[in-house]
Amino acid sequence: MPDTSSNQDRAGQVEAESAEAMEARVRASFKRQGMMATLGVDLVAVERGRVELALDHDDRFTQQHGFLHAGAVTAVLDTACGYAAFSTMSPDAAVLTVSFTTNLMAPAAGRRFVMTGQVVRAGRTLVVCRADAVADGAARPFAIMQATLTAVYDRPGIVQ
Amino acid sequence: MPDTSSNQDRAGQVEAESAEAMEARVRASFKRQGMMATLGVDLVAVERGRVELALDHDDRFTQQHGFLHAGAVTAVLDTACGYAAFSTMSPDAAVLTVSFTTNLMAPAAGRRFVMTGQVVRAGRTLVVCRADAVADGAARPFAIMQATLTAVYDRPGIVQ
Amino acid sequence: MPDTSSNQDRAGQVEAESAEAMEARVRASFKRQGMMATLGVDLVAVERGRVELALDHDDRFTQQHGFLHAGAVTAVLDTACGYAAFSTMSPDAAVLTVSFTTNLMAPAAGRRFVMTGQVVRAGRTLVVCRADAVADGAARPFAIMQATLTAVYDRPGIVQ
Amino acid sequence: MPDTSSNQDRAGQVEAESAEAMEARVRASFKRQGMMATLGVDLVAVERGRVELALDHDDRFTQQHGFLHAGAVTAVLDTACGYAAFSTMSPDAAVLTVSFTTNLMAPAAGRRFVMTGQVVRAGRTLVVCRADAVADGAARPFAIMQATLTAVYDRPGIVQ
Repeated sequence: MPDTSSNQDRAGQVEAESAEAMEARVRASFKRQGMMATLGVDLVAVERGRVELALDHDDRFTQQHGFLHAGAVTAVLDTACGYAAFSTMSPDAAVLTVSFTTNLMAPAAGRRFVMTGQVVRAGRTLVVCRADAVADGAARPFAIMQATLTAVYDRPGIVQ
Repeated sequence: MPDTSSNQDRAGQVEAESAEAMEARVRASFKRQGMMATLGVDLVAVERGRVELALDHDDRFTQQHGFLHAGAVTAVLDTACGYAAFSTMSPDAAVLTVSFTTNLMAPAAGRRFVMTGQVVRAGRTLVVCRADAVADGAARPFAIMQATLTAVYDRPGIVQ
Repeated sequence: MPDTSSNQDRAGQVEAESAEAMEARVRASFKRQGMMATLGVDLVAVERGRVELALDHDDRFTQQHGFLHAGAVTAVLDTACGYAAFSTMSPDAAVLTVSFTTNLMAPAAGRRFVMTGQVVRAGRTLVVCRADAVADGAARPFAIMQATLTAVYDRPGIVQ
Repeated sequence: MPDTSSNQDRAGQVEAESAEAMEARVRASFKRQGMMATLGVDLVAVERGRVELALDHDDRFTQQHGFLHAGAVTAVLDTACGYAAFSTMSPDAAVLTVSFTTNLMAPAAGRRFVMTGQVVRAGRTLVVCRADAVADGAARPFAIMQATLTAVYDRPGIVQ
């Protein structure tokens, strides 16, 4: 349970950052993820507190019944949550995942999957997000996530 | 909360299956996972209720700081739990993941990662597992999972 | 990952049940919970797939800093999810909790707390819900839950 | 994912604290929990990184089938994790729960329940624990938890 009071200086930096600068910051970090490139994930939309990703079905990422593997689904849900959280952080923060819970409610069957992460509440360092995974424009998600992310500052080897 | 009474007929089938037949059943299913082949995961050891997997660091599966992506870590933890559960199921069952929680306690930094899943308790259809992820033979895990799996019978398109 | 096809007969029973009968079924089960009586929880609203509960702060249910204990918060979130799921089940089903994840995002500080559970997706036996806990009419929740419930039929000692 | 480097000064304080002082610190905080008194929970054992609690069945804390409510089970599991984490923290830290996942694997049926929490890994501020709940000396747990706790320093209203 993080505190909810904001660090004043950093809150000021968040407010001062333009939407364009924030999106550029998210896209630059996203591009450094080997995993997203390997899975072929598109960064569809970035708003402060909300990130939408998408990927196509690929037999290289399946489980034993031919559906998208829970690990691939989770990789994209986690990344959607991570960047939703990152988009609300100070420009000098890096983001790391603390934990997440994924529910797989139906097989990941389809051609194209959209994963959307949204910030529920951002504390001084910890940020809690929810995410949904939807197949082929369905009304209901086939998987959901509840995630805890943390802002990290001044740690060697961990930048943005 | 699953029931804990065993289905008598299926329990009989589990007992009747040799360790060799069980391991062959697990290995055959594992080989059908495109995701495990893509990640280069080795099926190191299979016992009834315990499965050990391993993979090497690969830049194709990293997050933005160059560590193994939480989604890649989770894919292997989930698979270790899935086959640990599957190894205790009746030979005519398929296994699906219901949900899991992953805690990332330190960056996935290292050359080789070992993920071990173990059954905590198996009910009639639901099986609960825990798994640990360890880097380069460290004493403590850098990530852990608590997972719920389900046995599925006679569902079209979902076999073993 | 439950299947999503409905059991035909039971789906028929769900459709045939009136909103009044469903609400009476939920209220009768809720009344049998010693824990809800002890915590003084009110069943505020029941719709198919959505249940709202409320309780007042009480020093008997606090943690060491005087806030409502995470266990008390979770008891009400879990019950909100349980009856949200139960409200969508066949009248002959009982409901049990499989698992849940709670995030405590701020101290449970306030005089009155409202916990609302909603069904995200209902499969043949497993139902996934989300719930929010809000203090004193705040805009943002201080705690959230993601839960997996199961319908149980014909199990000795477990009815409705 | 917390960092894993220890704060040098605080690590020194942890090492300097005797086992007796640590246990006294845990017991003093435990006594301030209204919820533990209400549930009648005993603090059975305290070691650095491991805490054992116990409670008896009581009809005031049941769910609709007469078993111990998942919320009561979780309250004790969470407290066991919280104090296991607290026992490893600097004497000037307070502990708060960030999140937890509970699996209910069988009904909480029995006369006496023992919940044991253990630290898996402690970072600079975040600590990850696992806990088991066992009924009447059974070999296998009926419920388990995976929890994330945080150390808090110098926050108004939140001490020890």
